Amino acid sequence: MSTISRDLNVYGFSTEIRVRLSETDAVGIVFFGSFAVYFDVGRMDYLAHLGLHRFDGAIRDLIPGAVVAQEGCFHSPARYNDILVMHTRIAHIGNSSYTFHFMATNKRSRELVATGKLTLCWLDEDFSPVRIPEAFREVVRKFEGPLLTTA
Amino acid sequence: MSTISRDLNVYGFSTEIRVRLSETDAVGIVFFGSFAVYFDVGRMDYLAHLGLHRFDGAIRDLIPGAVVAQEGCFHSPARYNDILVMHTRIAHIGNSSYTFHFMATNKRSRELVATGKLTLCWLDEDFSPVRIPEAFREVVRKFEGPLLTTA
Amino acid sequence: MSTISRDLNVYGFSTEIRVRLSETDAVGIVFFGSFAVYFDVGRMDYLAHLGLHRFDGAIRDLIPGAVVAQEGCFHSPARYNDILVMHTRIAHIGNSSYTFHFMATNKRSRELVATGKLTLCWLDEDFSPVRIPEAFREVVRKFEGPLLTTA
Amino acid sequence: MSTISRDLNVYGFSTEIRVRLSETDAVGIVFFGSFAVYFDVGRMDYLAHLGLHRFDGAIRDLIPGAVVAQEGCFHSPARYNDILVMHTRIAHIGNSSYTFHFMATNKRSRELVATGKLTLCWLDEDFSPVRIPEAFREVVRKFEGPLLTTA
Repeated sequence: MSTISRDLNVYGFSTEIRVRLSETDAVGIVFFGSFAVYFDVGRMDYLAHLGLHRFDGAIRDLIPGAVVAQEGCFHSPARYNDILVMHTRIAHIGNSSYTFHFMATNKRSRELVATGKLTLCWLDEDFSPVRIPEAFREVVRKFEGPLLTTA
Repeated sequence: MSTISRDLNVYGFSTEIRVRLSETDAVGIVFFGSFAVYFDVGRMDYLAHLGLHRFDGAIRDLIPGAVVAQEGCFHSPARYNDILVMHTRIAHIGNSSYTFHFMATNKRSRELVATGKLTLCWLDEDFSPVRIPEAFREVVRKFEGPLLTTA
Repeated sequence: MSTISRDLNVYGFSTEIRVRLSETDAVGIVFFGSFAVYFDVGRMDYLAHLGLHRFDGAIRDLIPGAVVAQEGCFHSPARYNDILVMHTRIAHIGNSSYTFHFMATNKRSRELVATGKLTLCWLDEDFSPVRIPEAFREVVRKFEGPLLTTA
Repeated sequence: MSTISRDLNVYGFSTEIRVRLSETDAVGIVFFGSFAVYFDVGRMDYLAHLGLHRFDGAIRDLIPGAVVAQEGCFHSPARYNDILVMHTRIAHIGNSSYTFHFMATNKRSRELVATGKLTLCWLDEDFSPVRIPEAFREVVRKFEGPLLTTA
């Protein structure tokens, strides 16, 4: 799978996250694990923006996309009350899995703060991978355009 | 309801919690909200100790005890890697609700760190309060002895 | 100290919080401890709104307001992706401590979700309580009007 | 850097983590982001076990090891009250960075739950990378033996 782009033009969606005190740690900066939550906010807001969270809605009964892999790189520290712009895209749709890419920048300083990936797998009720529905693919394909790789 | 006792003799159960980096904040000490989690660990470990977590087991289907109120007082700061001793008791069983009391001390310095309360309400599947089962009452009564107040 | 008002007119400030997946638990609703974080977001946003977060700024060196007590009551469950309106006020300023009141409502259903309190104590560098500065009092007094009680 | 081994013999250290309710989410399983915290507990306990947390002690003044990259793969779901065995090793020490590998198994079922990596960079007070001290290298080299790769 491709590396995470740092070209803003590649990201069609962004959402803002203000750092909470609870997300920092005694080192004085944002705890690295808080970025897993931030990436997830990017994911949730992206899906809602495209009207795709109905696919994500039946939290309990059906699990349409479970996170199977996650990566983060932390380039510069973020601090209490910083505003992070979480640039979000779906970079790849495979057969039963798809991958988000994230680039978080500091809204005031414009510095690169973090990059990351989330890979989700579409599951049926028995937790077996199934092919991602055509309707989901179609919406993402339209939004992401030719940069989206598929399989 | 009675105030939270600081007499160790009153607490029949304790459990240890080591402070994780993620639970501290940029002030350099444990974030006050982390104590809500610590109190919940005290609750979970107490119930397991008395074999009562079967009542707490069917997480999804039946909700036997939902937290309806929580209190915390923070007496001295806790820090990364500190070991907290969470002294835990059930102080009161009412008709459909019951109340935990907590006193957290620092294992090394023996200082009082925090006190707290959790009140839980026994609910049926429609989220309506129901009387706490006799079996639960009996086990708690035996363990807590005459200090337990009931209604 | 007074009870927490449920009259919207009493609250001069509100801020919106969308429930993240990480803030829910296996019961299927928001974990009660997440409200400690939500109350803290209310506090932070209130202080920033009044330009008072410079008092809150020197996170490490001076601790102008440490949380010494916290309360929460949970009236109805909140769920993933719900939007909570966190109505926030300072209800009382004492000599060295002051108290926030919170009322969280569900933006879509308008249901009451939770009420809460945070009491903060103004500390000097040796963690000793000091009188809250006049400048802070003045700004809060102007904003809260005659409903603010003082000591 | 090498892939994460699933051979238990490779891991010289393990620590147990019981899943807290706050670490699960509305899907009914552990939130993927909680594993960032679990990996950090593995790291902290490993360093304490080798007496290396003095290097990690001066939380505020000196930052000897900041997390610069993190990876996780989630193989099977973990649930409330599960006990995870976090097998932990340092797999690689470079010039200024070093890498932990983790393998989390379910203590009761022995199933593989997650694998992960944390890469830390040794920094001086100006946040510039510096060579990892010989004393730290020596202790890790002794403990990890010939499996440790260095640069």
